Amino acid sequence: MGQESFTAQKRGGGAAATLPTTNGGRPARSVSSLLPRGRQIHKTFNNIKITILCGFVTILVLRGTIGLGNLVSSESDAVNQHLIEETNRVLDEIRSDKDPDDLDNPSEPEYNPNVTYTLGPKITNWDQERKSWLDRNPDFPNYVNGKARILLVTGSPPNPCDNSIGDHYLLKAIKNKIDYCRLHGIEIVYNMAHLDKELAGYWAKLPLIRRLMLSHPEVEWIWWMDSDALFTDMVFEVPLKKYDGYNMVIHGYPDLLFDQKSWIAVNTGSFLFRNCQWSLDLLDVWAPMGPKGPVRDEAGRVLTANLKGRPAFEADDQSALIYLFISQRNVWMDKVFVENSYFLHGYWAGLVDRYEEMIEKYHPGLGDERWPFVTHFVGCKPCGSYGDYPVEKCLRSMERAFNFADNQVLKLYGFRHRGLVSTKIKRIRNETVTPLEFVDQLDIRHSEQGSSGSQS
Amino acid sequence: MGQESFTAQKRGGGAAATLPTTNGGRPARSVSSLLPRGRQIHKTFNNIKITILCGFVTILVLRGTIGLGNLVSSESDAVNQHLIEETNRVLDEIRSDKDPDDLDNPSEPEYNPNVTYTLGPKITNWDQERKSWLDRNPDFPNYVNGKARILLVTGSPPNPCDNSIGDHYLLKAIKNKIDYCRLHGIEIVYNMAHLDKELAGYWAKLPLIRRLMLSHPEVEWIWWMDSDALFTDMVFEVPLKKYDGYNMVIHGYPDLLFDQKSWIAVNTGSFLFRNCQWSLDLLDVWAPMGPKGPVRDEAGRVLTANLKGRPAFEADDQSALIYLFISQRNVWMDKVFVENSYFLHGYWAGLVDRYEEMIEKYHPGLGDERWPFVTHFVGCKPCGSYGDYPVEKCLRSMERAFNFADNQVLKLYGFRHRGLVSTKIKRIRNETVTPLEFVDQLDIRHSEQGSSGSQS
Repeated sequence: MGQESFTAQKRGGGAAATLPTTNGGRPARSVSSLLPRGRQIHKTFNNIKITILCGFVTILVLRGTIGLGNLVSSESDAVNQHLIEETNRVLDEIRSDKDPDDLDNPSEPEYNPNVTYTLGPKITNWDQERKSWLDRNPDFPNYVNGKARILLVTGSPPNPCDNSIGDHYLLKAIKNKIDYCRLHGIEIVYNMAHLDKELAGYWAKLPLIRRLMLSHPEVEWIWWMDSDALFTDMVFEVPLKKYDGYNMVIHGYPDLLFDQKSWIAVNTGSFLFRNCQWSLDLLDVWAPMGPKGPVRDEAGRVLTANLKGRPAFEADDQSALIYLFISQRNVWMDKVFVENSYFLHGYWAGLVDRYEEMIEKYHPGLGDERWPFVTHFVGCKPCGSYGDYPVEKCLRSMERAFNFADNQVLKLYGFRHRGLVSTKIKRIRNETVTPLEFVDQLDIRHSEQGSSGSQS
Repeated sequence: MGQESFTAQKRGGGAAATLPTTNGGRPARSVSSLLPRGRQIHKTFNNIKITILCGFVTILVLRGTIGLGNLVSSESDAVNQHLIEETNRVLDEIRSDKDPDDLDNPSEPEYNPNVTYTLGPKITNWDQERKSWLDRNPDFPNYVNGKARILLVTGSPPNPCDNSIGDHYLLKAIKNKIDYCRLHGIEIVYNMAHLDKELAGYWAKLPLIRRLMLSHPEVEWIWWMDSDALFTDMVFEVPLKKYDGYNMVIHGYPDLLFDQKSWIAVNTGSFLFRNCQWSLDLLDVWAPMGPKGPVRDEAGRVLTANLKGRPAFEADDQSALIYLFISQRNVWMDKVFVENSYFLHGYWAGLVDRYEEMIEKYHPGLGDERWPFVTHFVGCKPCGSYGDYPVEKCLRSMERAFNFADNQVLKLYGFRHRGLVSTKIKRIRNETVTPLEFVDQLDIRHSEQGSSGSQS
């Protein structure tokens, strides 16, 4: 509609501009043949006047419309418009904040091609340091009742999304994570700050994960999860026992990784890192491809040349990790568990349309293609302006995933969404005077004991 | 700017419409005096033609602009515009979802003036029921290491905000709550569903709190907090020991309540309810003023007539609670702790401009006017279109409160915001090879033991 109207408006403007000379002029000319010279001059003069006036109109009209931003078609719209402008003024101010220390700010070192980028001074004895800290701080154990302490880390940019609806889906995504983490005793850190200007974008998780490992020695596993990934199995738990001998757990396929060298062999949208020296070392060798500008661009060319199916673009954290796994296989892979027995990361396109079928045939707690643990909206970029998929499809699919998961949470309270694209909920049972019966039956944390079979 | 351009555009349209008859006509008339009759007819005919054509232009131009929604002034804007429209289409679909069960949906009973509204069947023996459940479920104790289990409850509407920036500040508000609750071992429920159509708006917290009490017998205290309230003291803890003999803790002033009968004597933006029969009973007598429509409107008149300073509007949950406290003082007040020794709720207007002064003079952990525990943006309605304060002031103030609190969290990681309205952060210390020193110094959960003096 915007584009259609846009052309309509152009047509209008165009017509106004050309009218006097073509249409306004024609009849005058046909008359002129009947007129003596002096009158003809007078006529031409009139036509010019009309031309100028119509031109003036055109200018007025265009001036009235171009650069109008949000056109108001009613009083209330006018108010909202005003609101949006006030808002933008504040945001511009907040964004464009200057600081005297900007120059000598250590978080923005000068780019020097001769120096390899580092996340910070090399730490070499983390395992011992951490162990002795844990011994000194019995109030902060890394295992509670035999369960490893997990810190789920996610985040989004400090400023509002380009696409205003993006913030709404960031809100739904964190609500979804709050629910899962409450049910499974997992702590959450939601990051909204750029810790390192050089590692902006998808690389930002690296300095963040390192910082959190060093600041939270009590945490055994750091679980990174993208803001566009949703938990869609609220019962399933990561089978940590299975990873006792490993320091990293990431979703992927070994054959895609080592036989095909595919750039999507693993996915960095949801992975776990053990808090240990090995992980710090991996971060140290992973980060140097990340610095924005010439380094990241050049690294991108190397990755595209070496990874199957990779389009030509700057280095991304996922391709860099895959390249590292392939080129230094012997160094790292004995401690990396490439998981695909359940969806630690599940590609949304194959899943969101099958939720009804899953509800009909299966039940939460399976975590695999029957009931995906995580549905990840790769390529949707709800917070950016340009994703790889139509916004419409992305939003409807995210709404479906959110509600599919939310139904598993609402069940305890006696509600469910009216449909998978419906924000409205309905009762699935009436209020009762014996509510505790349902707590025993439906609280996921109780059934958890049962599903903890998935832990070994 | 929207309005100004709107008038400009109207002027343009108007000019285009009147041009041919006034300007286009005048010269023709002046010539006509010199012309014989036949030619004059021809002239008039020409003028009519021009009139029609210019009129046509006007229509084109107006059609091209009126009802244009978002006018696009550049290619990229055109794309964003298209994006917004796709978005709205999905949202409209999601909002306007119909359901066959809509009629027999128990969550929307027919309004019957002869029946007093209830939150559900009367529960009479909750204390015993809950106690025996706790005995049966030692894995879900209501006290952990001597600390009562708290569930913080907040929420926002299921659909995007009227003002698109609203969702961004809802996101920052929940990030702020996630931080506080992680640091103090408090669980969070973020509600985005309308549990009860009759108790929409500020009344929605009542059925939600009741439902959560009945579904979470392991929780000792339910802490309601509005979405527009931020934790601004990340160290302070609610001194629960102080409330051992009480079932409700709410910020307010006894003299305003009982002497002045002020409608702002207490604030329901942040209060605690003990999970017990008494609380269910209070909810039962509190709710009947809430049902949307005639009941809420009539109740509003009663409240305005009885509470000092209350404007005339439908019944709100806060006024209703105050009215209940005043009219049934003997029934309830011996179990209600009206707290004002710290800011369980802190009115933003008096606080946000003093943050720099607080940083200079005081430190987190005080919770009172020296370092407010909670800063509550009463009347800002960032998610609605119409607040009682200028959007600009509200947004800047919320940004300041968020960053003031965030600095207390970032300190552990070695960063702070460049200014209180800056989303950018800067290092306050360089990366080190001995990070654990700072954990011992700066982790709020350690200093907590110290500040737990505030608990008794």
